[in-house]
Amino acid sequence: MIDLRSDTVTQPTPAMRQAMFDAEVGDDCYGDDPTVNRLETHAAQRLGKEAALFVPSGTFGNQLALFTHCRPGDEVIVGDDSHIVWHEAGAAGAIAGVQLRTLDSDRGVLDAEAIRRRIRVGDDIHAPRTGLICLENAHSNGRVIPLDAMAAMWDVAQRHAVPVHLDGARVFNAATTLGVDVREITRYADTVMCCLSKGLAAPVGSLLAGSAAFIDMARRRRKLLGGGLRQAGVLAAPGLIALERMTQRLHEDHAHARLLAEQLAALPGLDVDLDSVQINMVWFRFTRPIDNASLMARLNAAGILANPPEDDLMRLVTHWQVDADAVARTVAVFAAFLRQ
Amino acid sequence: MIDLRSDTVTQPTPAMRQAMFDAEVGDDCYGDDPTVNRLETHAAQRLGKEAALFVPSGTFGNQLALFTHCRPGDEVIVGDDSHIVWHEAGAAGAIAGVQLRTLDSDRGVLDAEAIRRRIRVGDDIHAPRTGLICLENAHSNGRVIPLDAMAAMWDVAQRHAVPVHLDGARVFNAATTLGVDVREITRYADTVMCCLSKGLAAPVGSLLAGSAAFIDMARRRRKLLGGGLRQAGVLAAPGLIALERMTQRLHEDHAHARLLAEQLAALPGLDVDLDSVQINMVWFRFTRPIDNASLMARLNAAGILANPPEDDLMRLVTHWQVDADAVARTVAVFAAFLRQ
Amino acid sequence: MIDLRSDTVTQPTPAMRQAMFDAEVGDDCYGDDPTVNRLETHAAQRLGKEAALFVPSGTFGNQLALFTHCRPGDEVIVGDDSHIVWHEAGAAGAIAGVQLRTLDSDRGVLDAEAIRRRIRVGDDIHAPRTGLICLENAHSNGRVIPLDAMAAMWDVAQRHAVPVHLDGARVFNAATTLGVDVREITRYADTVMCCLSKGLAAPVGSLLAGSAAFIDMARRRRKLLGGGLRQAGVLAAPGLIALERMTQRLHEDHAHARLLAEQLAALPGLDVDLDSVQINMVWFRFTRPIDNASLMARLNAAGILANPPEDDLMRLVTHWQVDADAVARTVAVFAAFLRQ
Amino acid sequence: MIDLRSDTVTQPTPAMRQAMFDAEVGDDCYGDDPTVNRLETHAAQRLGKEAALFVPSGTFGNQLALFTHCRPGDEVIVGDDSHIVWHEAGAAGAIAGVQLRTLDSDRGVLDAEAIRRRIRVGDDIHAPRTGLICLENAHSNGRVIPLDAMAAMWDVAQRHAVPVHLDGARVFNAATTLGVDVREITRYADTVMCCLSKGLAAPVGSLLAGSAAFIDMARRRRKLLGGGLRQAGVLAAPGLIALERMTQRLHEDHAHARLLAEQLAALPGLDVDLDSVQINMVWFRFTRPIDNASLMARLNAAGILANPPEDDLMRLVTHWQVDADAVARTVAVFAAFLRQ
Repeated sequence: MIDLRSDTVTQPTPAMRQAMFDAEVGDDCYGDDPTVNRLETHAAQRLGKEAALFVPSGTFGNQLALFTHCRPGDEVIVGDDSHIVWHEAGAAGAIAGVQLRTLDSDRGVLDAEAIRRRIRVGDDIHAPRTGLICLENAHSNGRVIPLDAMAAMWDVAQRHAVPVHLDGARVFNAATTLGVDVREITRYADTVMCCLSKGLAAPVGSLLAGSAAFIDMARRRRKLLGGGLRQAGVLAAPGLIALERMTQRLHEDHAHARLLAEQLAALPGLDVDLDSVQINMVWFRFTRPIDNASLMARLNAAGILANPPEDDLMRLVTHWQVDADAVARTVAVFAAFLRQ
Repeated sequence: MIDLRSDTVTQPTPAMRQAMFDAEVGDDCYGDDPTVNRLETHAAQRLGKEAALFVPSGTFGNQLALFTHCRPGDEVIVGDDSHIVWHEAGAAGAIAGVQLRTLDSDRGVLDAEAIRRRIRVGDDIHAPRTGLICLENAHSNGRVIPLDAMAAMWDVAQRHAVPVHLDGARVFNAATTLGVDVREITRYADTVMCCLSKGLAAPVGSLLAGSAAFIDMARRRRKLLGGGLRQAGVLAAPGLIALERMTQRLHEDHAHARLLAEQLAALPGLDVDLDSVQINMVWFRFTRPIDNASLMARLNAAGILANPPEDDLMRLVTHWQVDADAVARTVAVFAAFLRQ
Repeated sequence: MIDLRSDTVTQPTPAMRQAMFDAEVGDDCYGDDPTVNRLETHAAQRLGKEAALFVPSGTFGNQLALFTHCRPGDEVIVGDDSHIVWHEAGAAGAIAGVQLRTLDSDRGVLDAEAIRRRIRVGDDIHAPRTGLICLENAHSNGRVIPLDAMAAMWDVAQRHAVPVHLDGARVFNAATTLGVDVREITRYADTVMCCLSKGLAAPVGSLLAGSAAFIDMARRRRKLLGGGLRQAGVLAAPGLIALERMTQRLHEDHAHARLLAEQLAALPGLDVDLDSVQINMVWFRFTRPIDNASLMARLNAAGILANPPEDDLMRLVTHWQVDADAVARTVAVFAAFLRQ
Repeated sequence: MIDLRSDTVTQPTPAMRQAMFDAEVGDDCYGDDPTVNRLETHAAQRLGKEAALFVPSGTFGNQLALFTHCRPGDEVIVGDDSHIVWHEAGAAGAIAGVQLRTLDSDRGVLDAEAIRRRIRVGDDIHAPRTGLICLENAHSNGRVIPLDAMAAMWDVAQRHAVPVHLDGARVFNAATTLGVDVREITRYADTVMCCLSKGLAAPVGSLLAGSAAFIDMARRRRKLLGGGLRQAGVLAAPGLIALERMTQRLHEDHAHARLLAEQLAALPGLDVDLDSVQINMVWFRFTRPIDNASLMARLNAAGILANPPEDDLMRLVTHWQVDADAVARTVAVFAAFLRQ
């Protein structure tokens, strides 16, 4: 099967399975798991922060960041189209007790001046404190935020002494596209969450990185939220492979996505915005009415999994289990479908 | 002194003071206060709802509405420029545990289609439930939301079975401007909060109205939030005067605001948007640089209290303690100041 | 009518009604209400703390104290029979996000050693922080906590640097019984809440007192909880009378309670624990089966309001509207009822 | 090394490592992980409930149960010595927003009548709702709650229609000791959490089981709390071995604990309460002063890990990596230490 639904569906690599088999483990609630310790040390260094913490999921990492940065009643500025707003089940109010301030966002790029206007200044007793600004790079729809946009948003935050958290679930994809060390991105944030699953293919887990003092607080609150695991080394071991090796090959996924996009763009009946293909995601639009069920049936028959179009808009995602041959087979199915 | 800072500064009228003196009271935590009961019954009828509840403040009433309509983790759609967002100290996350979804708002008017796009449909486990839509009429900056805009927002809410709460702190001002019974406005909301203080001049208190079942739940949660008062009849008595008599004279405040606006508009150096003068608030802009301290000193010397301009923009508010003579005195000060 | 149900039913005195009529008021959200300011200054001094804050109710004051002292996830040690546990609608978890640790309590007296064993020491990541210890004096069932018990509980808190909040809803009753200045009690607490209603007869309101820094924080959080009132001077004016004058006459209520208790004790069929009559509450037990409905009917016929016995246990409460004649009339009804 | 600190330190068995290597996985956020599905189905059947949910930890499972059973402001009755009170970082207030009611507990056995007295009856607006009763079997200090005590607590809950949650982190140890199918214990609870780690040796994970409707709600709230994992099958695979095979061998750990207890009891200078050795935990007391550092040094030198005594009280825990030889070596060290 070729699974193009998302990069969250990635299976662990054989090396990861071997690493789980071999993992040296201990009780991480007591800091005894050597593999977790190695992963956290490595991640901190890679992300350019003092310390890092292993967490069960990306949502867990983002919400732990909000809970640790903020007090109940704080306000958090965040793009209206962000993962935190759309896909984290409303956790921000329930756990951290914060009120979101959702700004217009061009797939992750917020206007620095619009942020500035929302930051609370002065000491008005009626106003919440602006507790945090959340950015997302790469954005969950596949857009990479340019470094100058990151810098502009960071600058306004710095000027008003508001901390910045970066939802970097796919920050290594962003670094790959920008052709920079990931620290060139994470320097524009106080804390960063990055996922070991998704394109990096580890089965479970994410990391939250920041200052040592912040991570100390986050470690206590991770326990409160039920994220203190025992022999977590079995997850940290594939996580180390994700971080050390899989980050080096993301350009292949991006190349496959571009290949797929270009070949789909050549088909009549499809409108592909090639500029929007920045990481491993391809978005395209059917320019004439199609029958979703019939498309899905054809894809299934060819051993291809995909999410059906919504309002004629469709997304395909590449990852380490999608190679050039899979791209060719996929394009062939679309070509045949559109020809009929 | 002429106090033009806000209508929250209104002193109780002599009749209200007499009513407090005479109030028949009981222990309202046991439903024993006849004056509170009379006020709640009257308010429900006036606002066109089954039941109403006396609460200590407008913020209390709005936040009690969120807490009663929603569960932790719900999402609440609300205008980015609303009182709930700006002036309620971030309570929504801390008390109800909800996540705000703050939309672009033209002084209270939200695009119905923009609301529709934010309402969560389907049963995606990643998405919060849309728990509530909050409107505000009159808007706290003085804008009255037209009935057709109310209807449009209400319709989209109804189609998706999302309840609507109306922050009607100044809903009687809105009804006065629109020339309709207040129920023509409140019909576009499941619940409504209205203030007895502000332009209606009661010293303390607001009302939350809705279905009988909703108010039953809200009554329990009012207790949890510390809003169960004892001999609250001493506040309900002036509240009844606010509701019965003061609502009948708001057109005077609006006329004084218009008079003030028109006379200020005639002065060189001031830009007054007469269209924005819809209730008892006058906004205007200095078209050339002025010295705030000097303006404030002149106003003070003339016995006039006002908030200083921010970025050359100034607001003056009329209420029952501001008459035509006060308007004239105020205009004279501005005229003299601008002449110099 | 003679209302013996509680001291929460007290009507404002004529002087209080006059004070409301005459009250000099302003917008307290801006610190402009001179009467509120006078009340807060006076209360701080009376209670022996740096600052005080007017709040709408006793529950509001207690919960604001928890919310201000604690962070979500803290643990609060409190007597199992306290008002905070029994009668505040579960607010502690919902607002402050704390976990109560409810200890055995002999009507308000907690064993200091039992408190010590619950205080969290060390830095175990599994353990919550002990955020607060709550005491209650006089206890809501009428018991006065002796000064040495207060001192013992305070000492253990001090040794572990855990703050203490005193629910002093009736702390002036306690001081009256102990024959000491109220500061001899409040010195054993970092913060104290006292009610102006109940035996002190003000219609609405309580005070929270503590250090200036604490009250600053509490003032902001009062706004978040909807407790920022406008012309609150109409409540502060009778509150000042409550504090200045009504505190001087509580011994009368205590004397009437004792008179009532002694005369009831002389009746056959009643068991009155005279030792438990420490403030204005009389508890007694029927020693043979009675018909509650018949008792209630007799009391009603005599113009006496009381809560019916529960499991043969009955409580009567005295206050400024219950004089010696009312006591005599009440005893007469019980005598006649028991004679039949 | 012989690690007697806890059963949380257990390493995965070779079979578990192989199972991780071989695990068939999918994206569990979309219900696509066949191994997770198999584990949840199996667990539901084993625990006698309609449905089960995989969660990252025992604390996560307990707190998810509170969050799903309760509304903010509810009260939860729980033993003062329970894991939820002691070792879950105060999560109950922070996440579920509930107020704990902590009762005297004889290592997990609560007096049914004491529970009954705390359950709120009637509809008093001042009282929280009793939302849940939490039991724990086996108790985290090693005590097994007899079935008749379970039945008595369950009966009072049933009579008042209050749901019961069982913290069954070691419920299979309890079943082993009682010699019954685990469903004979879990029938006295609406929901049950059991751990796959601890004595069952899986590296990570716990299960929450209950009615299908409850688990549906819990699944949504698990997402909100960040517990939605991706290819969780790598954890479910060893979890299945834990549930299917490791539950069958717990009697060995219990036998080793008893052996250890009996041999320690024979040493002069140790007081071992043999009756308290009910599962895999041995508690004993030094009857004369000892030097902790010296004891720890001796144990370390012999390759034995243990937590040092607190107030002369020491705990040793057996598990699959502790065999009869390890017991003998441990006893020998204590014998030598006490001889000196």
